[in-house]
Amino acid sequence: MSDNWLNKINWSDDGLVPAIAQDAQSGRVLMVAWMNREALKQTAEKAEAVYWSRSRKKLWHKGEESGHIQKVSEIRLDCDQDVVLLQIEQQGGIACHTGRASCFYSKLENGQWVATDAVLKNPDEIYRK
Amino acid sequence: MSDNWLNKINWSDDGLVPAIAQDAQSGRVLMVAWMNREALKQTAEKAEAVYWSRSRKKLWHKGEESGHIQKVSEIRLDCDQDVVLLQIEQQGGIACHTGRASCFYSKLENGQWVATDAVLKNPDEIYRK
Repeated sequence: MSDNWLNKINWSDDGLVPAIAQDAQSGRVLMVAWMNREALKQTAEKAEAVYWSRSRKKLWHKGEESGHIQKVSEIRLDCDQDVVLLQIEQQGGIACHTGRASCFYSKLENGQWVATDAVLKNPDEIYRK
Repeated sequence: MSDNWLNKINWSDDGLVPAIAQDAQSGRVLMVAWMNREALKQTAEKAEAVYWSRSRKKLWHKGEESGHIQKVSEIRLDCDQDVVLLQIEQQGGIACHTGRASCFYSKLENGQWVATDAVLKNPDEIYRK
């Protein structure tokens, strides 16, 4: 399989593109993370989400520590070729490092951010030291 | 209403944050654009999406030319406070400047990006000169 499709992406100056992970069943937006060329290539090959960790400066196969693998059923690109959208199945039902289903758990209510979603699992239990 | 909630955002060095617009009914991700502080403030006040156009370097009240206003029913923020998620009702059913429902109309199939979604309206008819 040719890698030409990777050349279509408008990579940022840092060589990255943001990727949205959406639950393929519920449609819920679970998280946004970054990918470099190799991360997106591996994501397509493995059909599992691989991101680029900007803090750790390395490839991050989502779930490698937590077991919370994201099975990827579809990859889309937007009209500016600078945002990727993944349809995924979230293993363990937890995408967020806080132990919640989605990273978007804060909702604006009357001028305040309110954490509306429950913590499903203690992060200390997710990431064993 | 205090503006303190705007201080919680991790604005980029350029003072921007990406905002995802999701159809509140279908759950479809329609587009991603950028907001500065004023754009997000106006979005909350008007309950209509206002973005920051990086190319035109000005506030962009989505639909101001096309009539394709986005009514905002919910604003969420992710765990890193650096991505905003809007639940919207898309007036006219067209979010993309190409005349499609969603900007994410290209799908990766066998190593190629394929435009899978129909153009609902000719862009020349949307943006009258």
